[in-house]
Amino acid sequence: MAFPPLANDTFLRACLRQATPYTPVWLMRQAGRYLPEYKATRARAGSFMGLATNVDYATEVTLQPLDRFALDAAILFSDILTVPDAMGLGLSFAEGEGPKLARPLRDEAAVAALAVPDLDKLRYVFDAVTSIRRALNGRVPLIGFSGSPWTLACYMVEGGGSSDDWRRVKSMLYARPDLMHRILAINAEAVAAYLNAQIDAGAQAVMVFDSWGGALSHRAFLEFSLPYTAQVLAKLKRSQDGTTIPRIVFTKGGGLWLPQMEKLDCEVLGVDWTVSLAQARAQVGGSKALQGNLDPAVLFAPPAQVAAEARRVLDEFGAPHTGSGTGPTHIFNLGHGINQHTPPEHVQALVEAVHAHSAQMRGASAA
Amino acid sequence: MAFPPLANDTFLRACLRQATPYTPVWLMRQAGRYLPEYKATRARAGSFMGLATNVDYATEVTLQPLDRFALDAAILFSDILTVPDAMGLGLSFAEGEGPKLARPLRDEAAVAALAVPDLDKLRYVFDAVTSIRRALNGRVPLIGFSGSPWTLACYMVEGGGSSDDWRRVKSMLYARPDLMHRILAINAEAVAAYLNAQIDAGAQAVMVFDSWGGALSHRAFLEFSLPYTAQVLAKLKRSQDGTTIPRIVFTKGGGLWLPQMEKLDCEVLGVDWTVSLAQARAQVGGSKALQGNLDPAVLFAPPAQVAAEARRVLDEFGAPHTGSGTGPTHIFNLGHGINQHTPPEHVQALVEAVHAHSAQMRGASAA
Repeated sequence: MAFPPLANDTFLRACLRQATPYTPVWLMRQAGRYLPEYKATRARAGSFMGLATNVDYATEVTLQPLDRFALDAAILFSDILTVPDAMGLGLSFAEGEGPKLARPLRDEAAVAALAVPDLDKLRYVFDAVTSIRRALNGRVPLIGFSGSPWTLACYMVEGGGSSDDWRRVKSMLYARPDLMHRILAINAEAVAAYLNAQIDAGAQAVMVFDSWGGALSHRAFLEFSLPYTAQVLAKLKRSQDGTTIPRIVFTKGGGLWLPQMEKLDCEVLGVDWTVSLAQARAQVGGSKALQGNLDPAVLFAPPAQVAAEARRVLDEFGAPHTGSGTGPTHIFNLGHGINQHTPPEHVQALVEAVHAHSAQMRGASAA
Repeated sequence: MAFPPLANDTFLRACLRQATPYTPVWLMRQAGRYLPEYKATRARAGSFMGLATNVDYATEVTLQPLDRFALDAAILFSDILTVPDAMGLGLSFAEGEGPKLARPLRDEAAVAALAVPDLDKLRYVFDAVTSIRRALNGRVPLIGFSGSPWTLACYMVEGGGSSDDWRRVKSMLYARPDLMHRILAINAEAVAAYLNAQIDAGAQAVMVFDSWGGALSHRAFLEFSLPYTAQVLAKLKRSQDGTTIPRIVFTKGGGLWLPQMEKLDCEVLGVDWTVSLAQARAQVGGSKALQGNLDPAVLFAPPAQVAAEARRVLDEFGAPHTGSGTGPTHIFNLGHGINQHTPPEHVQALVEAVHAHSAQMRGASAA
């Protein structure tokens, strides 16, 4: 496929630890319920899955935040449960509740029957990627994504959304690690194939969300999450049409494990707000770009405080390199998805502050 | 008050980094819903607060787990919201739901009206401490406790139990840090007075639960949680009747901040299961005892796996010192409160494995 050339490549350059004139910014879940225009499209679509499975709606909502804010990347509008759904687990979203899987993996027979899904069942996702990439028309790059093998397993065993104790999935992990390893191996293969198909369809970077990695113990993370994320990364395409496809890994609550995550074969590590960016840069900035990490709750404060907190995050990372080679770089983001109660005008203040202050920091350090 | 001499002082010795013949073990929320005898007492009491405010019931349930398991410490049966309740915020527990505060701190006027409570309103807690200490009759030491100033503030502003975004309390923190600092200063004074009164009543160690410290950003933790915990510690009695009263601080999700927490004037740091005990020992074991950190979900697995995971936690800490002075010590615990769905016989397997394996480790290292 031929797509228009990219007008704003700051995000991709920062992923590759190349200098940029300012710090690029995008926000996890930037196409979402905090935007009235999103709610209007969703109302027309009738349901969340009606939105996610319709190429035109998915394209429309993906571009909505870009029309409001000077964001430096777009991210595919989809849900991480598309893969378990394609595996036959039966995804549905009840109004006002989280996702539900009708056929969770609760016994040995269910785990034995699990298989890598036919990618044709996920054709609507790849079609959305191509449609969004065309609609972007080179404005900013498009990020594809998937849940990590472990995070998908959490939903697949629990049968629903976030849990405060992950009782079912952890019971299986501790009581029947053999079953858990089987699920994770299948998930790793499925996620790699899913992300490669997104790359084929036009995704210019891919992100693995290990949203529930932080629920694991230190030892369990190293046994049940990290190695399967590594398996996914090992199978991913490195480039498409001669252009490198950066790979981002984000483990929510995984700040303690940055030294182990540095060994992952990826370009960018995402961090949440519990992490000091100065410390993270000292630990892994020599080989990975860093993405994050404003507390999404900052966006509840008035615009002046939002801007001040954004500057503090930039200052904490410190001046990115401005040379011609590679060096420490920062991609500004939240430490988690944007909250549905966020006033859109606060996002405006955030994006402007990130661009203005980060450009000024480079001027100051170059001067 | 005169109390009988202590038969088992392993917990207190380990708190003070003194050698013990085995690793002492107790479990957060060890008196709780996973025990049928607890449920029976609670049914007789009619409600959670009926249980917590009645000295005889509180004594009865505190001792129940000790009658089943060879635990090395008892912890006062109470709730961290007793302090906000005494401040006039109106605590209630609806059946099947979490705690509710009828008058949460939602505006400047409410914050201005907040004051350190009259400790007489908490007399039932201190009476329970004395009653439990007498009933223990020197079997094991009794731990008193309180929520941290920040953790209490979370409930006081939100008006209820745990939140997945802490929207109200974080909005205040970012938009009106002056109000938040006022709440925290009052809380620090109240918590110190509350814990000192527990010490006067017979508590032999005290623990500060910063259960929601891990919800804060790196910078916010250092500004809004840690300094107020330090204020509490500075005001606590160091000894009672000539015996040192060890002070434990546990920040759930605070593993990244151990280097900063090492500077706290306390004897013990609690850690959750995301932390590597080997790394924590290397970081802070030279000055603090460590408490933790088994994932409570391990207790869902069969007894053999429970025992194996307990041994892995002990091995990860490594051999505690066996000399006559002070050195690295470990108090075995979970990384969070025990889950209500835990089978009691799995707790039996846990306690036996901790005692047996930790005694063996000392034999091996002494041999």
